[in-house]
Amino acid sequence: MSRFFSTKYKNLKAYTPGEQPRDMQYVKLNTNESPYPPSPSVSAAVMNEVGKLGLYSDPECTELVSEAAKLFGVKPTQILMTNGSDEILNFAFMAFCDEAHPIVFPDITYGFYPVFAELNGIQYEKIPLKDDFSIDINDYIGIGKNIVIANPNAPTGLTLSLNDIQKIIESNPNNVVIIDEAYVDFGTESAVSLIDRYDNLLVTQTFSKSRSMAGARLGFGIGAESLIADLCTIKYSTNPYNVNRMTMAAGVATLRENDYYMENCKKIIATREYTKNELEKLGFFVTDSKANFLFAKSDAIDGETLYLELKKRGVLVRHFTTEKIKDYNRITVGTPEQMDIFLTRVKEILNDIQK
Amino acid sequence: MSRFFSTKYKNLKAYTPGEQPRDMQYVKLNTNESPYPPSPSVSAAVMNEVGKLGLYSDPECTELVSEAAKLFGVKPTQILMTNGSDEILNFAFMAFCDEAHPIVFPDITYGFYPVFAELNGIQYEKIPLKDDFSIDINDYIGIGKNIVIANPNAPTGLTLSLNDIQKIIESNPNNVVIIDEAYVDFGTESAVSLIDRYDNLLVTQTFSKSRSMAGARLGFGIGAESLIADLCTIKYSTNPYNVNRMTMAAGVATLRENDYYMENCKKIIATREYTKNELEKLGFFVTDSKANFLFAKSDAIDGETLYLELKKRGVLVRHFTTEKIKDYNRITVGTPEQMDIFLTRVKEILNDIQK
Repeated sequence: MSRFFSTKYKNLKAYTPGEQPRDMQYVKLNTNESPYPPSPSVSAAVMNEVGKLGLYSDPECTELVSEAAKLFGVKPTQILMTNGSDEILNFAFMAFCDEAHPIVFPDITYGFYPVFAELNGIQYEKIPLKDDFSIDINDYIGIGKNIVIANPNAPTGLTLSLNDIQKIIESNPNNVVIIDEAYVDFGTESAVSLIDRYDNLLVTQTFSKSRSMAGARLGFGIGAESLIADLCTIKYSTNPYNVNRMTMAAGVATLRENDYYMENCKKIIATREYTKNELEKLGFFVTDSKANFLFAKSDAIDGETLYLELKKRGVLVRHFTTEKIKDYNRITVGTPEQMDIFLTRVKEILNDIQK
Repeated sequence: MSRFFSTKYKNLKAYTPGEQPRDMQYVKLNTNESPYPPSPSVSAAVMNEVGKLGLYSDPECTELVSEAAKLFGVKPTQILMTNGSDEILNFAFMAFCDEAHPIVFPDITYGFYPVFAELNGIQYEKIPLKDDFSIDINDYIGIGKNIVIANPNAPTGLTLSLNDIQKIIESNPNNVVIIDEAYVDFGTESAVSLIDRYDNLLVTQTFSKSRSMAGARLGFGIGAESLIADLCTIKYSTNPYNVNRMTMAAGVATLRENDYYMENCKKIIATREYTKNELEKLGFFVTDSKANFLFAKSDAIDGETLYLELKKRGVLVRHFTTEKIKDYNRITVGTPEQMDIFLTRVKEILNDIQK
């Protein structure tokens, strides 16, 4: 830390992204990326932009927003595109939270929420999940604070029903409820259908998981026009050209080939259920994940040891040291071939232990 | 504004990017973009990333930072890459300014500085330029506040000598001095050579102007390791994957083909001097700009009228309504062909007026 760093960040602990080791080729199941490539027309769409890179990108993302509005059945003024969904989440923390408006979220969830709160000097409260890692919606009914809930939640993959989400939104009419749907396309009902009914609902999504674009950085928020207008004010006060030309073109192509991505999601769901079943046969407890990852533990081996042994054998999964979940690992669902390698390695490790 | 927007933004007026009208093809001289395309290998570099878009980009931008470190003769730990240079500027306002550390800058300069200050709740003071639009460095000597100076300054194009910048840095050892070098490659000496001597100096640059990448969004900061470490903390608390794969690859290719871009800068400088000379022949007063734009006024026509008349005739320049500079227009230096069209239109307009 330099002697110039503002003391307002004295408690700030930056987010730690999943590791990206370069010492060998891994079967990479640690950052919830899609194992499937972008759709056929993405390449040509990107190429078409390269000659125009000298010109600024459209700050309003007009074509991209229009395409997304069509797909999601909302108005263009109800969407804001950002440089990944971390940016829309940060914008929402900035816009709607302050000293008088703290925020709450589950104690086990996306690790970035407390970072955004610390960064912006916002008071926050972590509400414990139930012992089975599910969210008790009664904890959020009428809480009178801003709320962010990942649905499905990370790293558990557990979901709330749309009905439960609606109860939370309705019972907190004077607070903003953010539903982070990064993993929604793998089998959860989206809350986008509710945005016309509640002016306090913001839904965020990303192209990183179901749309094979983690490396292109594209996320977005959908909500009431008035919320989106505020988020636009933040964007235009931060980084007006936040989405570059190539990503914008890739995004448009991606939305036009939506069926391809939804087919991939079906494949990933099938692979998830297959892998879950195999892990259970090996004695693992696996949460009922509706995301593109599994969350699993075994009484035969502790979480960190399994993670390290897998890494030695060329398979990367994500292990969190947080006390409550340290027995578990989060395993991204890749291709069936990748998951078979993973399962084979797990069996080897379990066998070695029993010797 | 929604009923949820934090009152801390009650005075926030977002930045207004240059207009991007779509009603016709314009000779676009309003946002200081390069008229020359990216260098030959950018296209292949970008293409090579498209198949890998499903995987997150490298949050450390290892290869890009390494290439930039080589070119600028600094250590990789003295560089941070961002989503355009607006992002590094905002990070610097966030990291080093707070209630106890206000910031000062010229009254006529890049219009985003007061927006960053407002956004982050930072007190700021605008120090008037001299009547000839030059900066009086005595205003900044020992001022005891953080400082941001664009060198060359916008929209005047006027520069400070490295010697003067050094005096400002030395006389404010307990404050951070940010030198915004967005336009440095068009004929100004960079302050990067000073970073090893002053731990309170941050230099920011961009790929948007001299490197034909405005649409790819890439900027960076160079400074003491301790300053860069703080800015990294902000980045990892905001958007760890802030630079996407395609832009990163384009940036690497661009730095490896630096000669191409420096040749373009020479062409732009020659075109700038030619255009300045022609405008002076037409009776314009033109500042001694060392940027890729000219700043000019004529007693024969007021600034706004000229801007509007040019727009009608298919040439876009930038007009600012700020009282002190409302007689002027900022004209991006394009190709010689573009500037001849511009000059022809100006002559037509002046002729029409005299009728």
